[in-house]
Amino acid sequence: MDTGPSRLGLMPKTPGPIKLWIRLTLPGVGQIGPGKIELLRKIREHKSISAAAREMKMSYRRAWLLVDDLNAAFRQPVVEKWMGGKSRGGATLTPTGEKLVESYDAVVARADSANRALLDELSGFTTRPRA
Amino acid sequence: MDTGPSRLGLMPKTPGPIKLWIRLTLPGVGQIGPGKIELLRKIREHKSISAAAREMKMSYRRAWLLVDDLNAAFRQPVVEKWMGGKSRGGATLTPTGEKLVESYDAVVARADSANRALLDELSGFTTRPRA
Repeated sequence: MDTGPSRLGLMPKTPGPIKLWIRLTLPGVGQIGPGKIELLRKIREHKSISAAAREMKMSYRRAWLLVDDLNAAFRQPVVEKWMGGKSRGGATLTPTGEKLVESYDAVVARADSANRALLDELSGFTTRPRA
Repeated sequence: MDTGPSRLGLMPKTPGPIKLWIRLTLPGVGQIGPGKIELLRKIREHKSISAAAREMKMSYRRAWLLVDDLNAAFRQPVVEKWMGGKSRGGATLTPTGEKLVESYDAVVARADSANRALLDELSGFTTRPRA
């Protein structure tokens, strides 16, 4: 059994401020965390689910399933896919998708700003306080 | 391959407000999320790591490793263990441990309150908006 630092997700020695990792829990719908949001960002950037999947080192199938999940969670689709044309199909974020990414970023920013003083204080109690 | 709702952690049909699931990321130290905090609460409640582990359905060994991890992350221990006596040993939270649990709860409460309106608005876009 691995009992080394990596077992619990300990990171390399790069001291810095305590950060918040946030997932939205939608009861009866699902969960949306940094991974799905990053996938949406990559889809927007590349206009392609397969290119986004490649960049995130996940299978095309997994990316599709995550997108379908997100689409099923909202009244309007989050990602729009099209077939054909010179680029042999592509994908982009819908207004709901843009709203989701924007909301997620706002949630993280506000949660951080509401807690920055407290997190910096707590950091002083750790063995690697902020630089 | 399971492609049903449980694959991505979808929950039973219990609509309610969007909630935040938060983990503290301490660069160079580790991560602290609801699981470790819950373990600390159970240790406080039962004055025992083994009883806490039992209630959380984790092995005693895993609970010990998590506690050791937490202790190593802070300048002062988070959990204090003692041996012997009528109760054959026990454990309790130190002031640093109390501070950590209290800080974590405050972070979650503030993050929620800073984002409540936004999360409720986003909830209206989902297929299961709040009741």
